Amino acid sequence: MSTTQKDISTALQQLLLRMGDSTLVLGHRVSEWCGHAPVLEEDIAMANVALDFIGQTQFWLELAGELGGEGKTADQLAYLRDSAQFHNLLLAEQPNGDYAHTVARQFFFDAWHFLQLQALTRSTEPRIVEIAAKAIKEVDYHLERSSDLMIRLGDGTPESHDRMQVAVDDLWSYTGEMFMGDAHDAVLAQAGLAPQPESLRDTWLTCVQEVMEQATLKVPASTYMHKGGKQGRHTEYLGHLLATMQFLQRAYPGCAW
Amino acid sequence: MSTTQKDISTALQQLLLRMGDSTLVLGHRVSEWCGHAPVLEEDIAMANVALDFIGQTQFWLELAGELGGEGKTADQLAYLRDSAQFHNLLLAEQPNGDYAHTVARQFFFDAWHFLQLQALTRSTEPRIVEIAAKAIKEVDYHLERSSDLMIRLGDGTPESHDRMQVAVDDLWSYTGEMFMGDAHDAVLAQAGLAPQPESLRDTWLTCVQEVMEQATLKVPASTYMHKGGKQGRHTEYLGHLLATMQFLQRAYPGCAW
Repeated sequence: MSTTQKDISTALQQLLLRMGDSTLVLGHRVSEWCGHAPVLEEDIAMANVALDFIGQTQFWLELAGELGGEGKTADQLAYLRDSAQFHNLLLAEQPNGDYAHTVARQFFFDAWHFLQLQALTRSTEPRIVEIAAKAIKEVDYHLERSSDLMIRLGDGTPESHDRMQVAVDDLWSYTGEMFMGDAHDAVLAQAGLAPQPESLRDTWLTCVQEVMEQATLKVPASTYMHKGGKQGRHTEYLGHLLATMQFLQRAYPGCAW
Repeated sequence: MSTTQKDISTALQQLLLRMGDSTLVLGHRVSEWCGHAPVLEEDIAMANVALDFIGQTQFWLELAGELGGEGKTADQLAYLRDSAQFHNLLLAEQPNGDYAHTVARQFFFDAWHFLQLQALTRSTEPRIVEIAAKAIKEVDYHLERSSDLMIRLGDGTPESHDRMQVAVDDLWSYTGEMFMGDAHDAVLAQAGLAPQPESLRDTWLTCVQEVMEQATLKVPASTYMHKGGKQGRHTEYLGHLLATMQFLQRAYPGCAW
């Protein structure tokens, strides 16, 4: 069966939504720490990371709207879709938990995000290259920061070590989805638009192992991995997140500044 | 200044919304325990209390819609108002916290609710008498149950005692609003529609002191009391509760079974 132009358009739309929804949902989660983080410096840092993510979302969803053919804006895509139409990674929607969970989630995501954006700077679609090239500068810093926190907390006090290990163990099963390709991914890879997800796994694992060794944390042996987020099948957490995030546009449709 | 028929209609509408919103909001809070309560029997009991409250809400808001003159249904009032238009007691919207907080919130509310309904069975408005007479049978049982739990947990283990005392201390400042009358309350009392809120306080306090003494808990000395819920000024918790509770009707307007 040959790949049609329509297959490519559909797959490209998926890529843009998967990128934009992951940064939107994780950005919203990170923003929940605003005013609640354990120390002031972390509070400000987290708010900045959240802002970076929301900025990146704007680019991805704007392009998704433009190429989607229904004339939707980034705002309409962010605020007027229900959970089954969201294509973010399940990892992004997991709750903040304690700070260890927030740090582990961020580190696992950043390590993948960096590699994904690096590959996207070599996409055959110039507008994707442009967004990825902008975003990777921010994500380079995100990864440095979350790696550093993994090490400081993992190799910190007995309590911080134990909490980090619990967080790593809890979230590990949400990391597999980043490296599972589906039919859309195959089309994208064939067209040179995006990397095959599986191809990033070894480099990701090397980075994760290196940081976790310095952090005196054990890489979980478990291989069971959740999947479905990219295809719109989500954990119950996403619905609650959207209820909060979308309240204003749902209660006051079309409301503008 | 003499009281006009319009003053009475407005005050009556307030009474119905205050009653219906308090049972709706507390009913929703209690329902959050469904599937999460510490033991199965409690889980079922809590779900039953929540159902009683939602049933009572249906009566109060149906009458509010009927007398409100805009032809609104109970569902429209429940799902399409924003927080500033809610008139529930602040106590009702406080988060569940640990089980001690849930029990203390319930007991303080039940003790007031029983007295309020008892007085409303003597209202000059027959439809209010009818609703109050139905509801008080359920609330009689709620109060017996929450009094019993106050005593079992307060006079239980050192940990359950300490947790109950923390909960009582945390929630005490939300009990004053039940006994603070405003201009609407004065109109209602004058017309014989509802009791003056202040008139219930001594009996409530006697009941609370008696139960807390058996529970080996201290009645807080603090006299600072929050207010504003009845007038539409709420804690941040209500907005989040409504975002979840109203999601379906907000995202799918007019959606029906």
